[in-house]
Amino acid sequence: MEERVIGNGTLADGLVATIRGRIAARTLVPGAKLPSIRAFAKTMRVSNSTVVEAYDRLAAEGAIRSRPGSGFYVAAPLAPLSLAEIGPTLDRAVDPFWIARQSLEAGDDVLKPGCGWLPPSWMPEDALRKALRALSRADDSTLADYGSPLGLTPLRQLLARRMAERGIEASPEQILLVDSGTHAIDLVCRYLLQPGYTVLVDDPCYFNFHSMLRAHQARVVGVPYTPSGPDIGLFARALSEHRPRLYITNSALQNPTGATLSPVTAHKVLKLADEAGLTIVEDDIFADFEQTPAPRLAAFDGLDRVVHIGSFSKTLSASLRCGFIAAPRGWIEGLTDLRIATSFGSSRMSAELVLSILKDGSYRRHMEGLRVRLSRARDATIARLAPLGLTPWIEPEAGMLLWCRLPEGLDAAEIAKRALARNVVLAPGNAFSLSRSANGFLRFNVSQSLDERMFEVLEAAMRESR
Amino acid sequence: MEERVIGNGTLADGLVATIRGRIAARTLVPGAKLPSIRAFAKTMRVSNSTVVEAYDRLAAEGAIRSRPGSGFYVAAPLAPLSLAEIGPTLDRAVDPFWIARQSLEAGDDVLKPGCGWLPPSWMPEDALRKALRALSRADDSTLADYGSPLGLTPLRQLLARRMAERGIEASPEQILLVDSGTHAIDLVCRYLLQPGYTVLVDDPCYFNFHSMLRAHQARVVGVPYTPSGPDIGLFARALSEHRPRLYITNSALQNPTGATLSPVTAHKVLKLADEAGLTIVEDDIFADFEQTPAPRLAAFDGLDRVVHIGSFSKTLSASLRCGFIAAPRGWIEGLTDLRIATSFGSSRMSAELVLSILKDGSYRRHMEGLRVRLSRARDATIARLAPLGLTPWIEPEAGMLLWCRLPEGLDAAEIAKRALARNVVLAPGNAFSLSRSANGFLRFNVSQSLDERMFEVLEAAMRESR
Repeated sequence: MEERVIGNGTLADGLVATIRGRIAARTLVPGAKLPSIRAFAKTMRVSNSTVVEAYDRLAAEGAIRSRPGSGFYVAAPLAPLSLAEIGPTLDRAVDPFWIARQSLEAGDDVLKPGCGWLPPSWMPEDALRKALRALSRADDSTLADYGSPLGLTPLRQLLARRMAERGIEASPEQILLVDSGTHAIDLVCRYLLQPGYTVLVDDPCYFNFHSMLRAHQARVVGVPYTPSGPDIGLFARALSEHRPRLYITNSALQNPTGATLSPVTAHKVLKLADEAGLTIVEDDIFADFEQTPAPRLAAFDGLDRVVHIGSFSKTLSASLRCGFIAAPRGWIEGLTDLRIATSFGSSRMSAELVLSILKDGSYRRHMEGLRVRLSRARDATIARLAPLGLTPWIEPEAGMLLWCRLPEGLDAAEIAKRALARNVVLAPGNAFSLSRSANGFLRFNVSQSLDERMFEVLEAAMRESR
Repeated sequence: MEERVIGNGTLADGLVATIRGRIAARTLVPGAKLPSIRAFAKTMRVSNSTVVEAYDRLAAEGAIRSRPGSGFYVAAPLAPLSLAEIGPTLDRAVDPFWIARQSLEAGDDVLKPGCGWLPPSWMPEDALRKALRALSRADDSTLADYGSPLGLTPLRQLLARRMAERGIEASPEQILLVDSGTHAIDLVCRYLLQPGYTVLVDDPCYFNFHSMLRAHQARVVGVPYTPSGPDIGLFARALSEHRPRLYITNSALQNPTGATLSPVTAHKVLKLADEAGLTIVEDDIFADFEQTPAPRLAAFDGLDRVVHIGSFSKTLSASLRCGFIAAPRGWIEGLTDLRIATSFGSSRMSAELVLSILKDGSYRRHMEGLRVRLSRARDATIARLAPLGLTPWIEPEAGMLLWCRLPEGLDAAEIAKRALARNVVLAPGNAFSLSRSANGFLRFNVSQSLDERMFEVLEAAMRESR
């Protein structure tokens, strides 16, 4: 074990950390000259090559700069965190932010089969209007006051009952309301991670996991995803090789593949997680789209090492912000403190709106209709993509996503760029793939793929890319 | 300069960083034994005392544990971030979270002169109801879709015009809508800080700044606050001694003192900030309470090194969540990326509600009435506190806060504990003071201090504390 702590590589680690700390503390200010390699090596009693390695690494991360013939200097000014610049520079066409921002910024004349949500016309408009009218008659506390630290109690009670229907036993005191599924995962990451910690994700996975983990300065390791969950052999190997702190995954209707965890894989994942002391974040924002409930890690595990995440952005409204965390009992106090420190409270109005729509049965009716509508749209999209040579990796049981393989030799990023020039936002596969091995795939949202123009643009972009 | 980078202390820094990194990466797992001091010193070619220093520091931060007669072991399990445990352990009565959570959890029978917001009955209830009814008639995109990355354009345009009235030139493209003032500051901190960076705050200041900066693992340095802003001599000294990355402050109606920055101090603060390359976060959430606008750092500076923060939680509703950041032009792209990565988007519904209330003049009328009402409540509170021997540090020009000195020898934390037992939440001074030098002060919210029972409880608690 001593060999791991010490050795040459680790001496360089120590130098890097020391100099980085001095820059952070501004003992070394922007523009200051670092000691020469030879002098520094001598004083530190390390070899020249150790100092060279440390300086090279600091230069690569932009903390210091070399001026040929003169030496190394602290870079100026201190660069703020840029998610676009951490990690390898990406072609903007497969940069996760590109998809998100293109979709968010798109005008009405833009088609967006690459976006991850339903068109507003598919959302329960009447129920939202009715809930807003009811809210306009609420008492003044509801309209103007902060919510309680955990969030609206009757909504947490209702969420606990809904989870129980899926076999997840959570008391309302284990549920914390937050602003969205993304916010929920971010809060858990802030609670558990430090810069340099390792996190496992599926490959492919929701592209925003990559961006978020970059913001946490985590080391991200991908595990290939199969139609029944992560590849268990490679998952086990990743655990022993990388000793991750966290694994973030979707159990049902995985984004982008639409695949669903099998009971056997769920059991094996949890067994390995137990042995390795791994925490799992189960992002379950697509749960309500399911026709038949898939196994949930949180149900198997009982919220011991699994944190369960949900939200209403995909099924009810993304305009009001409401998500939740169901976490191990001992974590709620710390998560709530962290939530108060970083954004004070969740929106009481949003919670009231969600509660009133969930309570009166209109959400259940809306979801029943939505499942039928999505099923038809999925069939239509698959049928329309077939003549173009695009085939689904699997046929998902439910949900809006379809992960499609392009004909051999076509480049998804290239096609996406050409389509964007014609006002169609596609989602190229590598945006979802840490190993960048999915450039033969596109992710389609079947609810956003009903306009014939989309297929015409896609066909033209594919033709031009050959 | 070489002396600073190297030397004995810094060798220990390197060892600490190396071992911490190995624990983070889980190369050293919980329970693993560390090398003996002698063996480790020999292999690292450092003195025994350097290794002892490194191990002692790691033990102090809880990363490793010593077992007498056996050696040092990696502590198990990996502890999640606990804001309550970082920094010195506080008496819960002066723990910032204590005040926040007591206030948030308080039932209707609890009086809370220590909380930092208005009673809901003081908020523009009719305007909120009207805005909700109008929103119930909005189009389906407004009801159900994500907002644009920066947030609702007409609201950003209106905010830019409102800032211009205070002399702050910000284009709508420099304004990013977020969920609250707290969320705004947290996002800026995530953008600019790394663990170990130093941040200046006023002493006393809003207690949640302390909690938030603990979540960022920042080093926090306090600068004594005077009735016209930070003490300039000590501010200058803190800059040269600590080289902070950020200074977080309120320019107008400072929390907790109610004091306001003078033009001369504003000039000096900015001059020193320019010389030191310091960024300033100007938290201006109390702006709309002012009778006459105070100087704004963002106005003097032109959003060059000043980030300006605002929110509607204190003046309109804390139930809908809406705040904003006006930042240097070059930062907006990075801040927006970070916002998408960590919570995807802001609430479009909240932005629409704020916009409709701001647009139709009802907000302006509400604020005019509120200023008069607060002014009367302030006079009444000062008059009622005088016979108890409580005197305001200054008489604020506006706002809800009153920073009051207790009679000699009384202990604010003790009084707060006794008052809580009688269902009155007070805000003891040391919760606001990094140096813990404000235990002779209580912060009162004049809008929450109109119930005679509060004064009776206060008097009894003071009597029992003598």
